[in-house]
Amino acid sequence: MSTTVFAFPGNEALARVIAERIDASIGTLFLHRFPDGETYVRLDTDVNDGGAIFICTLNEPDAKLLPLLFAAGAARDQGARRVGIVAPYLAYLRQDTRFKPGEAITSRTFARLVSGTADWILTVDPHLHRYGSLAAVYSIATRVVHTAPLISQWVRANVSRPLLIGPDSESEQWVAEVANAADAPYVVLEKTRRGDREVEVSIPDVARHRDRTPVLIDDIVSTARTMIAAIARLRAAALPPPVCVVVHALFAGDAYPTLEAAGATRIVSCNTVPHASNGIDVNEAIADCVREWARRW
Amino acid sequence: MSTTVFAFPGNEALARVIAERIDASIGTLFLHRFPDGETYVRLDTDVNDGGAIFICTLNEPDAKLLPLLFAAGAARDQGARRVGIVAPYLAYLRQDTRFKPGEAITSRTFARLVSGTADWILTVDPHLHRYGSLAAVYSIATRVVHTAPLISQWVRANVSRPLLIGPDSESEQWVAEVANAADAPYVVLEKTRRGDREVEVSIPDVARHRDRTPVLIDDIVSTARTMIAAIARLRAAALPPPVCVVVHALFAGDAYPTLEAAGATRIVSCNTVPHASNGIDVNEAIADCVREWARRW
Repeated sequence: MSTTVFAFPGNEALARVIAERIDASIGTLFLHRFPDGETYVRLDTDVNDGGAIFICTLNEPDAKLLPLLFAAGAARDQGARRVGIVAPYLAYLRQDTRFKPGEAITSRTFARLVSGTADWILTVDPHLHRYGSLAAVYSIATRVVHTAPLISQWVRANVSRPLLIGPDSESEQWVAEVANAADAPYVVLEKTRRGDREVEVSIPDVARHRDRTPVLIDDIVSTARTMIAAIARLRAAALPPPVCVVVHALFAGDAYPTLEAAGATRIVSCNTVPHASNGIDVNEAIADCVREWARRW
Repeated sequence: MSTTVFAFPGNEALARVIAERIDASIGTLFLHRFPDGETYVRLDTDVNDGGAIFICTLNEPDAKLLPLLFAAGAARDQGARRVGIVAPYLAYLRQDTRFKPGEAITSRTFARLVSGTADWILTVDPHLHRYGSLAAVYSIATRVVHTAPLISQWVRANVSRPLLIGPDSESEQWVAEVANAADAPYVVLEKTRRGDREVEVSIPDVARHRDRTPVLIDDIVSTARTMIAAIARLRAAALPPPVCVVVHALFAGDAYPTLEAAGATRIVSCNTVPHASNGIDVNEAIADCVREWARRW
């Protein structure tokens, strides 16, 4: 089956890597915003009855979802046999339960809309907390690329005597995996969140690691308040300034300069969301995963 | 069945009129935008197993659709027996066919997403061109409020010796209805569109109406280029400066001051989209339609 890969704006590099890896064509996706705020979508490459893959990382998701679903619909109209989405960052996984009565469980609605339009979705380290896997909310086929090996590799190459520090107890398994592969010890923060931007943290047993370089890691950094609070704790415990490693660099508002100013000696992220801090390439791993999967289409 | 009416921001006045007319409660809808761009939605009023009506005009639709579908989902989770949407302006009806190969027929995808979440939708003068009715794209129950009688009434009360001028041949039936009820003659523009913002028009037989006040009417005004071009033609034909009447006042960018500067003596719109030009109230007519319909729920 012939496959055409379409990149949404900002996703062109990953589209090229994937297309090359699976020997697919790059399609031309034309997007236009009408003066009234509606979106116009046109596939200038005919997918015929082959496969169509749309590459669209889903940070700032509210305005991105409709154009993505429009494009997927256009591929179906052309006769596409399989329509896939590669979203290196997949939004709307955090609201995975009802914390207060009347709350919309947005993860379910979002997943239903995507599942009603595409045949499969691939993402990188989805923020799964109460859901055991994406299959708990997505009714279509899903694949996940894990960044732990890439982060371990980066830490080994760039940090001497690292101490890995994870954001919370839920992340312990992930942090342990990164730490073990980097031959480093790890601890996790004890965290109390008081709102979107307020968080209190403590770091257990950190004093005995004073001769190590702290490496704060987290899957999503938005306001960076957790990392900033952790840096203050590290300073109070007389540890050296830390390195910060992030999978999905959302960095809302002034979060990035604020984190730099708080004392991070270096901030590095995976390139799932385009950002100045991108330093760990996941495109090759994504392309490998697509290729592996494409064999079974 | 008890019914709760929830207003999205800017739709509070209409929600109150509807709730009063059908003896429903006004519910509290809490919306919050997280720093990372995701939307949080909570219904602070429990709809139990009653009806929920969401009032949300759908101009600038891309960022509005998800929060609306989230809210509808939350009502379903509460056990709502019927979920309705009142969207005085309903977007995504213009792309009703494929003008070029590969185009997404956005009207169909948008209608499918809405139809998958709500039980009914009510709107005002939808822009139906190739679709005979909303039922051609919406698979749920639909109701339409017509503004023609309200516009006629406004013209009779505010314009002496009016000449109604419609935007194109497709609008002729609508313009004729408005003109007849206003006891006025009408003509329609002959229009050639050359892009989002470029349009050429001519006005047939206009010279014989030099003693009348031209009333340019259109269902949607976005860039206002059609009306601006028509004003130039009227001036060339030595007619007085016109009054402009609009159903849905989208007015993108500087369209409104540009239309004023082009020579419109007065610009008035229905209040389906909040705008400085709003002068024809449709809220009562919408509430009447909801009440009529509510009897059959």
